[in-house]
Amino acid sequence: LAASQIASVGQRSETIRRSNLSAIVRELHAHGPLSRSELVARTGLTRSAVRGLIGELSVGGLATERSGAPLGGPGRPSVLVAANPAGAEVLAIEIAVDSLAAAIVGLGGQVARLVRVERPRGHLAVDDLVHDVRELAGQVGNPWDQSDRLLGIGVAVVGMVRRSDGFVPLAPNLGWHDVPLGEAIAGALGTAAPVAVANEADLGALAELRRGAAVGERDLLYISGEVGVGGGLFVGGRPLTGAAGFAGEVGHMPVNPDGAMCGCGSRGCWETEIGERALLQRAGRPIDGGREAVESILAAAAQQDAVSLTALNETGRWLGRGLAGLVNALNPRMIVLGGLFGRVYFFVAPTIKEQLDRFALPAAREVVRLAPAALGVNAPLLGAAELALEPVLADPAAWLSRTPQRMLASA
Amino acid sequence: LAASQIASVGQRSETIRRSNLSAIVRELHAHGPLSRSELVARTGLTRSAVRGLIGELSVGGLATERSGAPLGGPGRPSVLVAANPAGAEVLAIEIAVDSLAAAIVGLGGQVARLVRVERPRGHLAVDDLVHDVRELAGQVGNPWDQSDRLLGIGVAVVGMVRRSDGFVPLAPNLGWHDVPLGEAIAGALGTAAPVAVANEADLGALAELRRGAAVGERDLLYISGEVGVGGGLFVGGRPLTGAAGFAGEVGHMPVNPDGAMCGCGSRGCWETEIGERALLQRAGRPIDGGREAVESILAAAAQQDAVSLTALNETGRWLGRGLAGLVNALNPRMIVLGGLFGRVYFFVAPTIKEQLDRFALPAAREVVRLAPAALGVNAPLLGAAELALEPVLADPAAWLSRTPQRMLASA
Repeated sequence: LAASQIASVGQRSETIRRSNLSAIVRELHAHGPLSRSELVARTGLTRSAVRGLIGELSVGGLATERSGAPLGGPGRPSVLVAANPAGAEVLAIEIAVDSLAAAIVGLGGQVARLVRVERPRGHLAVDDLVHDVRELAGQVGNPWDQSDRLLGIGVAVVGMVRRSDGFVPLAPNLGWHDVPLGEAIAGALGTAAPVAVANEADLGALAELRRGAAVGERDLLYISGEVGVGGGLFVGGRPLTGAAGFAGEVGHMPVNPDGAMCGCGSRGCWETEIGERALLQRAGRPIDGGREAVESILAAAAQQDAVSLTALNETGRWLGRGLAGLVNALNPRMIVLGGLFGRVYFFVAPTIKEQLDRFALPAAREVVRLAPAALGVNAPLLGAAELALEPVLADPAAWLSRTPQRMLASA
Repeated sequence: LAASQIASVGQRSETIRRSNLSAIVRELHAHGPLSRSELVARTGLTRSAVRGLIGELSVGGLATERSGAPLGGPGRPSVLVAANPAGAEVLAIEIAVDSLAAAIVGLGGQVARLVRVERPRGHLAVDDLVHDVRELAGQVGNPWDQSDRLLGIGVAVVGMVRRSDGFVPLAPNLGWHDVPLGEAIAGALGTAAPVAVANEADLGALAELRRGAAVGERDLLYISGEVGVGGGLFVGGRPLTGAAGFAGEVGHMPVNPDGAMCGCGSRGCWETEIGERALLQRAGRPIDGGREAVESILAAAAQQDAVSLTALNETGRWLGRGLAGLVNALNPRMIVLGGLFGRVYFFVAPTIKEQLDRFALPAAREVVRLAPAALGVNAPLLGAAELALEPVLADPAAWLSRTPQRMLASA
């Protein structure tokens, strides 16, 4: 072998090691604890390779081995490998329409601490946000002051987000235009840890895919609504972020040329037919009644109140009609309804299915199933944690090389 | 090293070799001829690795080296490496609304022979199709009779296609329901070569991305129309095929609840507003006048005929409105208009851009550009060739291992 070929083989062995470490950590994170045999089966790596990689991850603090329950009757208990939640932690933040939340989440998805505070709907000054985020982060434990385990910060926000730098060109429900949110949060927390920002629905989709209603799916359409409507799309197991991270604004697809004016400046957007305000208006409630007014519609509908049932049915009809178009355009395997649409699911699902039967192309209709979100209000927050954990999942080796000294010192 | 680790390293060196061969062949196919230095720069491989890989490909008949023009003045001419079109050939077939076509295309995208015949619009019996395909294939040279270089057969069809087996559940413009097209074509040609079938617009998008208006783009929305409207989507450089291959049926997104009945059984689909028939009707032409009638509208519009201009403007308005919704949902970098929309581009582009300005979210609007298709009527046929060539691009090593004997025999 020529010298350059040897160097090249060496470089590639290292590339392979990193990618194998990543495969193991991803399995432990999403599906752990797992036995070594399960890891062999899931990754396709050899038994001895898996043993070596687990050893590295254990020394580096990212994995732990422990005895599982014996497999019935006598015999050795099986050894289970788990992600070590304390080995890599992230701070997740959510800026929602009517609440703010923060959580510390460890590798493996374990939530160590979570705080959510209500906030009045409407405009949110960035200075106030910075103040509130600092306070919430303090309540979950200021991990960046005391630990070198903080991998990063993930932020879910109800607005459009440029993924590259967390810039928010538009968040109508917060009254934001052109807010450098990533920068503002990094400044607020005074940390050098990386800040990753994404749209709330995109992150809700990620969380539902990894730990909620859509586990194991690869082609997912997640639609979540309150006043506004957002979508999160996964295609072939990958998030469809679009050229700049703005994809998923399905609420602003035109469905009705004679429809109402939309907050975006257009007319007849899907959001104007399926958003919270349309439901409240159709049910004769104040259109700014918020979640409480929605609850009162659901309570009345449960008592067979005709006006409420008709209003919900109309929401279901427009939901189904628009979803049929998206089923035709994107051929998803699964549709998950979150936020408002998860709460009204019980009442609107039959109408949605009927509309899909009528208006989606049969071949695409046959392969898609519909379900309510499983993670409830915390889906975007948990998705923000997943986003912030991504670097350690993609390349745990880089993280291991930062940690041995700490691990030795704290041992 | 333990024995299993050595085996594992051996397996991986082979994996790396295959993936490096693939990287070289993809570059030569899409961007060749290239100098060795360009291949080094484009692939990130070492100079010696590139030399070795080219050697393998040359022996196996997939690449050729030749002297390029000297780089100005005296000095050695540079050596250029090219894909060898004769080294791997495919048969491409297109089943369009008003024509059938076949071509032999070689590695590197070179079209050896191409035949296109008009056919009357309307229903096409599968038996007739089988007959016509056999005849067309004969005209381009029956390559499967005389050559072991035929890599496979790619088919573009104006209908929905299940990618796994080339089954067509629906092709309204051909009058097809549940046609096993892949099977029928394999039977017609009596060949064991693999047959890959995909939707016409999906393959038009692929061709435009690789050799047309969208070279270098990764996030593409391609919309092509005649009577029906199809879309081809690329996201992050990958085709968005959907869960079963049916994605891209954007013509059946609901845009007008009071709109016309659509051939799909729904009402107010985008296709009913932007398809050929809507244009013909608005211009006072017979709705089944076909391409000839469209040409007469364009000729009249060029003479400032008010009815024709208004009709084109209305098509542009609905095109722009729907595209704005797709820009919001998918955040593409580029929109390419093919088929009918390519032909009317000159007249409708200003209206489309105006609609995008009004109705697309500004952040998504800013990053998208609009262009007419560059490959004209042959885009889907060329895309079918690209589809059939994909196996040799993805794993040229498998193809090389089939060919040495042949190459020696014919040398």
